Amino acid sequence: MNDTLPSWHDTPTKQAILDFVATVTDESSPCYVPPAERIAVFDNDGTLWCEQPAPAQFFFGVDRVQALAPQHPEWHDQEPFASMLKGDYDAVFAGGEQALLELVMATHAGMTTVEFEQIVRDWLATAKHPTFNRPFTECVYRPMLELLACLRANGFKNYIISAGGIEFMRAWSEQVYGMPPEQVVGSSIQTKYELRNGEPVLLRLPKLNFLGDKAAKPVAIHRHIGRRPLMAFGNSTGDQQMLEYTQGGSGARFMMLILHDDAQREVAYGPTRGLPDVKLGTFPPALDEQAQQGGWIVVSMKDDWKQIFPA
Amino acid sequence: MNDTLPSWHDTPTKQAILDFVATVTDESSPCYVPPAERIAVFDNDGTLWCEQPAPAQFFFGVDRVQALAPQHPEWHDQEPFASMLKGDYDAVFAGGEQALLELVMATHAGMTTVEFEQIVRDWLATAKHPTFNRPFTECVYRPMLELLACLRANGFKNYIISAGGIEFMRAWSEQVYGMPPEQVVGSSIQTKYELRNGEPVLLRLPKLNFLGDKAAKPVAIHRHIGRRPLMAFGNSTGDQQMLEYTQGGSGARFMMLILHDDAQREVAYGPTRGLPDVKLGTFPPALDEQAQQGGWIVVSMKDDWKQIFPA
Repeated sequence: MNDTLPSWHDTPTKQAILDFVATVTDESSPCYVPPAERIAVFDNDGTLWCEQPAPAQFFFGVDRVQALAPQHPEWHDQEPFASMLKGDYDAVFAGGEQALLELVMATHAGMTTVEFEQIVRDWLATAKHPTFNRPFTECVYRPMLELLACLRANGFKNYIISAGGIEFMRAWSEQVYGMPPEQVVGSSIQTKYELRNGEPVLLRLPKLNFLGDKAAKPVAIHRHIGRRPLMAFGNSTGDQQMLEYTQGGSGARFMMLILHDDAQREVAYGPTRGLPDVKLGTFPPALDEQAQQGGWIVVSMKDDWKQIFPA
Repeated sequence: MNDTLPSWHDTPTKQAILDFVATVTDESSPCYVPPAERIAVFDNDGTLWCEQPAPAQFFFGVDRVQALAPQHPEWHDQEPFASMLKGDYDAVFAGGEQALLELVMATHAGMTTVEFEQIVRDWLATAKHPTFNRPFTECVYRPMLELLACLRANGFKNYIISAGGIEFMRAWSEQVYGMPPEQVVGSSIQTKYELRNGEPVLLRLPKLNFLGDKAAKPVAIHRHIGRRPLMAFGNSTGDQQMLEYTQGGSGARFMMLILHDDAQREVAYGPTRGLPDVKLGTFPPALDEQAQQGGWIVVSMKDDWKQIFPA
């Protein structure tokens, strides 16, 4: 099975993953878990792909504001749009969750679900990551792609449980992660069914439906999956409750946090760097301590991963 | 493939199902659909199991009110509880959706999700259908169980899209229908994540989260599945939009309504019987007409089904 994780160094981290998978799939083991219950949940931003200097969906929002600005002359004097148009993202983040939600409602609503999916796909086809200068879908972590494939091959069903927009992720999750839309869960706005010229459509409304971060992650897991996960992967305080909830199940459970400590190949923003939580997933010392106490595995991107991104 | 539906008479209805499945799974057909997109959605009450004289969950509510009444002396003078305790269900239904929601909040909330699941299972283990005098889980339609199995064998993923309670159904859907919890969607109340004596639990709150009937069914399908279904099965106006939405997809689609016209073996409540919608799924002449115009198949339980219930 070792060959299934070629981008992982032969460290105890890799061994812990392989041991766990071997144990729960071994019918003679007391920890055997039937395939239907092999649920693995993954945070997305910072766990499956790069979230620095901001999650891809933020840059999608930036480009949407630019694209829609001609129809909204008032945005030049109105926050958070004015700062967004000037590229002053720190000012945008200073507005907190409220400012980000306002941006989402102004840029992610007002079209059908089919139209929105196309907007995301068109954007992804040309957008480039601001520092790595490659498509966002190539800023995924190669070791994690291998892990997803390894779990799938062992009868696991992989789910994304993200605070990111569910429909933003579903537009590319199947192609990039091999995760079909029904295995992608995130924050959402409301939709409304209607007949438009006789055609049944779902219209995206500028109203929040669900914000899927922190304590809302176990809620989302229960709502969409209805089972406690066997394995959970995250990288920040936003994932704390998801990992706790997974740990709370009976029998063998596996919890993993990815520590961004590779300044050379990605960005270092581990426990020693207290960035504002709204902007980035943070991994404060308290989370590190909880991980140690709970037997959660902490991946060092620097030491555990041979390669970060696909070639 | 004919042998896979032994409880169906050899009528055009059965042939339409088999032809559709054969076509979309035939790689040489222009209508071929890859397995990942073979989504079939089913209403539950009246489509997969008996909903007369009321859906099983209603009787669950009746028994819950009885069980909790000693702790609520005020219920004897308070509607809808007073009528419920007296067995005057018509008076309960007369209170409309509001009365039913009040009953749900009083009887389905205040415990953890794990506790609730156990309550449902314990109830189902002993409760009997009031007229058929057998467990509710044996009041499922045998021809539909065969259909679910046939679709599964042909690479379909079957989902329940019901107005019934999602957690009520998930407690038995895997055992009875072979549908794992993640393929069961319904109405829901809110849950809250918390640590209880250090144990992570989800507490069920007396607050509505989602009411999954009528125009909310396509919304639920999009939220949980993220794809337009290939096949949709219902039996009432509550399923109209789900079937419309399915029909609106490109390529081959299959829509089916079950007409309850078998007074001998079940209950006849077809287009000629205008029962209050809150109480029962209704199949008015207008729906019949829409079915004809849309090429939806209408199953006559009397003429198309050899047997209704399992032996």
